[in-house]
Amino acid sequence: MEVTNRYTTIKTHIDAAPKESDFELMTAPLVLSLEPGSADIIVKNLYVSIDPYQLNRMKTYSPTHTLSDYSLRITPAQAIEAYGVAKVVVSGNPEFEKGELVVGLIEWGEYSLIKSGGIISKLDPMGFPLSHHVGILGLTSGLTAYAGFFEICKPKKGEKVFVSAASGAVGNLVGQYAKLLGCYVVGCAGTKEKVALLKEKLGFDDAFNYKEENDLKSTLKRYFPEGIDIYYDNVGGEMQEAAVANMNRFGRVAVCGVISEYTDDGKRAAPDMLDIVYRRIRIQGFLAADHINVYADFMSTTCDHIRSGKILALEDISDGVESIPSAFVGLFRGHNIGKKIVRIAEE
Amino acid sequence: MEVTNRYTTIKTHIDAAPKESDFELMTAPLVLSLEPGSADIIVKNLYVSIDPYQLNRMKTYSPTHTLSDYSLRITPAQAIEAYGVAKVVVSGNPEFEKGELVVGLIEWGEYSLIKSGGIISKLDPMGFPLSHHVGILGLTSGLTAYAGFFEICKPKKGEKVFVSAASGAVGNLVGQYAKLLGCYVVGCAGTKEKVALLKEKLGFDDAFNYKEENDLKSTLKRYFPEGIDIYYDNVGGEMQEAAVANMNRFGRVAVCGVISEYTDDGKRAAPDMLDIVYRRIRIQGFLAADHINVYADFMSTTCDHIRSGKILALEDISDGVESIPSAFVGLFRGHNIGKKIVRIAEE
Repeated sequence: MEVTNRYTTIKTHIDAAPKESDFELMTAPLVLSLEPGSADIIVKNLYVSIDPYQLNRMKTYSPTHTLSDYSLRITPAQAIEAYGVAKVVVSGNPEFEKGELVVGLIEWGEYSLIKSGGIISKLDPMGFPLSHHVGILGLTSGLTAYAGFFEICKPKKGEKVFVSAASGAVGNLVGQYAKLLGCYVVGCAGTKEKVALLKEKLGFDDAFNYKEENDLKSTLKRYFPEGIDIYYDNVGGEMQEAAVANMNRFGRVAVCGVISEYTDDGKRAAPDMLDIVYRRIRIQGFLAADHINVYADFMSTTCDHIRSGKILALEDISDGVESIPSAFVGLFRGHNIGKKIVRIAEE
Repeated sequence: MEVTNRYTTIKTHIDAAPKESDFELMTAPLVLSLEPGSADIIVKNLYVSIDPYQLNRMKTYSPTHTLSDYSLRITPAQAIEAYGVAKVVVSGNPEFEKGELVVGLIEWGEYSLIKSGGIISKLDPMGFPLSHHVGILGLTSGLTAYAGFFEICKPKKGEKVFVSAASGAVGNLVGQYAKLLGCYVVGCAGTKEKVALLKEKLGFDDAFNYKEENDLKSTLKRYFPEGIDIYYDNVGGEMQEAAVANMNRFGRVAVCGVISEYTDDGKRAAPDMLDIVYRRIRIQGFLAADHINVYADFMSTTCDHIRSGKILALEDISDGVESIPSAFVGLFRGHNIGKKIVRIAEE
């Protein structure tokens, strides 16, 4: 049997803020069968993750390109790897059977051919919507928030936590985890609507719209009169500088992402190193992939909290492979609220 | 009995590179006796430490001023606190006897009045020159190098270590500790003479004169073709940016001091946060005072290595209280080689 596979590609490398016209919907015939002896599998994609970090892989040159085993460069006209949930259509791998659900690295398209050795595993939905397994229970959002907060920040009850891009896929979860631990949590976001959501729906102690502030250093001083113990950084740039300037001794900055720097190669955070020395501040970059050791804890804790209603799964879902470019571009324009996901097909 | 105490002060706060004319030698009579019931002690200063960080305490405003229990602000016309070795002249404290040697926080002058509760302890020279107890066996250089390298950098044998200001009081020791552990060590310094010393006397694998380099990023790439695992940062600024750009995954930057930024408040290091995220780099500020737990290890290890000739004590000693301003100013002009100490008086 042969189908037509539609998938999203980039036309050329992207070195600035992405536009929809940077992308192209490609069409290719796909035979739904494998050579004898092949251990590949073919899956029908159901939900795919739309993450800001993918922009770094689309650049002409970026630090990700020197990483041979993680987050490889995306090549124009080729299918774009992404985290997601899919259903097995054909399997040459005895571990997977036709009709089974899988989660892992698939593609921004309707079907994915997953080579033997691909990062994919069977998925038991455990009664949750499949989209949850892309977002709140997935690696690029859920585990990133959990490992970054608990493993990198080493939080203690009562500590003062600041989260940037707090209504984003990762930030909203960090804030919710921090509240459940008993921290004081303030988030920043880019619209009134997002700020209201943080305070009213997600239990943040406070929140502000950074676009309404002129002097971020003073803003943070106002929201943290006793100083910041933990800054979960999703944006970089001036916000990081302002957070460091307001940090307490032994403060920790977990650098999860620096979205303000992704679209502007010249933009940099220049935190005051005298503060860093005298207040013994730690700035730590990390990737969720290094923290698979806490995966079981992350899953059981998070599933329990979702079931008991203590954690809210904030999702922003668009439909159809053709909506991927606008979904992705929207990440850099602040359009999404919570985890951005594209539903490629219904189960 | 009354003596004349000569001591160094600042005329006003210093907000740029210090000049000798910023300092003044003051003279005041000092009665060598205490009120009945006083627990103070009066000591005759023998050797005092001259450290770059003291400049931060001399500024109109600096991060150190917000630290209530450490490294307080220095006030014009008042005696300047400094680490050093002294001899007890008069004691109202039963722990100390006249004629005993002490080490701790004294002053840049001929005598110090140490209030009850002052940071001072008895000194057993253990056969070493007294100057060693100010430098290589002291807190501001020896323990800073030891704790910063072993506790903050967590080095492993074979790792690639870069040290800036490598012929300075702290840097030269970090390099020597790193070599003894079996690391590959490259240092940078500001003169040919210093570079030769690092390679020929201190056992560094390589060294370079940063003043002869135009593009520090390329320079470090040349010296570290396999990347840097540990950067012991004494200077901040562009050197930190270049080191981060050349770091391996899970690299560590111990920020001990940022001398290039002390004399220029607007100068900042702006390391690429994308490198920090993707290579999981940690930037950590620290102060030796937080690592008293390794003091016993530090002393026994370092004393053994000095005795066996495996570590060289690099000292740069000037004589007399009147030489303090030029000694201090020289730190920011690269005049010192190794630990800068002023000998106030012979034992």
